Amino acid sequence: MSESDGLVYFEDLEVGTTAAFGGYHVTREEVIDFASKYDPQPFHLSDEAAAQTHFGRLSASGWHTCAMVMRMLVDNLTANRQAGLGSPGLNELRWLKPVYPGDVLRVETEILSKKQSQSRPEMGSFQSAIRVLNQNDVLVCTMQSIGLIRVRG
Amino acid sequence: MSESDGLVYFEDLEVGTTAAFGGYHVTREEVIDFASKYDPQPFHLSDEAAAQTHFGRLSASGWHTCAMVMRMLVDNLTANRQAGLGSPGLNELRWLKPVYPGDVLRVETEILSKKQSQSRPEMGSFQSAIRVLNQNDVLVCTMQSIGLIRVRG
Repeated sequence: MSESDGLVYFEDLEVGTTAAFGGYHVTREEVIDFASKYDPQPFHLSDEAAAQTHFGRLSASGWHTCAMVMRMLVDNLTANRQAGLGSPGLNELRWLKPVYPGDVLRVETEILSKKQSQSRPEMGSFQSAIRVLNQNDVLVCTMQSIGLIRVRG
Repeated sequence: MSESDGLVYFEDLEVGTTAAFGGYHVTREEVIDFASKYDPQPFHLSDEAAAQTHFGRLSASGWHTCAMVMRMLVDNLTANRQAGLGSPGLNELRWLKPVYPGDVLRVETEILSKKQSQSRPEMGSFQSAIRVLNQNDVLVCTMQSIGLIRVRG
């Protein structure tokens, strides 16, 4: 909790700061594996079933997209360690375009706002816009996440 | 698309309708498997690391909770088939309490509103409140989902 522990604290966050990272290769095997466990709708399991829908071909579950985004966020946090306290949730999650096997996903983030807690002044919250794009720079998913973070001790 | 195909269409949805279903057994193996792939933060991987945090012991990734909820929703939809057209996303996802191995999750839903599309009158959208509870009736997660559904032909 010292000022020299190398962590990012509430005071270090600046509204407007952007970041770009990721490069997640979406595989057919992983799309089917995730959908089999958690979202076994036909268009997430086979090209044949997806051809009957607006997806056109096998596409990833929206929740699988979120999971892949989380992996990119965690990998990025490992490189830029925050005095984080988890997340209470997020607002306005939107799945805008299908995610297909063969896609490569990347993430852009921007800090939208931050606020120190009135009731617990040792912590603060901040909102970030998260944009998910594929290899053709098509925006496939957006969300506004809420993060909790410690105030410097 | 006939009136006798047994599907639920936009006209059949009634605001205020509730449903309750589920019974998903959360296992330690699955919590660690999901986190290893998608959310490898220490408190989602081991009891020892989680003991250092407010989680206290190994807890599921919030995204894993969402994935388990989706599985319960899909299993319920299979029993109550809708003329569904997928989901553009959701609002106000909140992770309220930790989800632990050994928990049994269930879902309560309520239709909050519905609206026929102006630009595409062959379809409509509806918003549902989704509440996720554990075996002790503790509310662990809430969200408002948006669904698209066909208007009866």
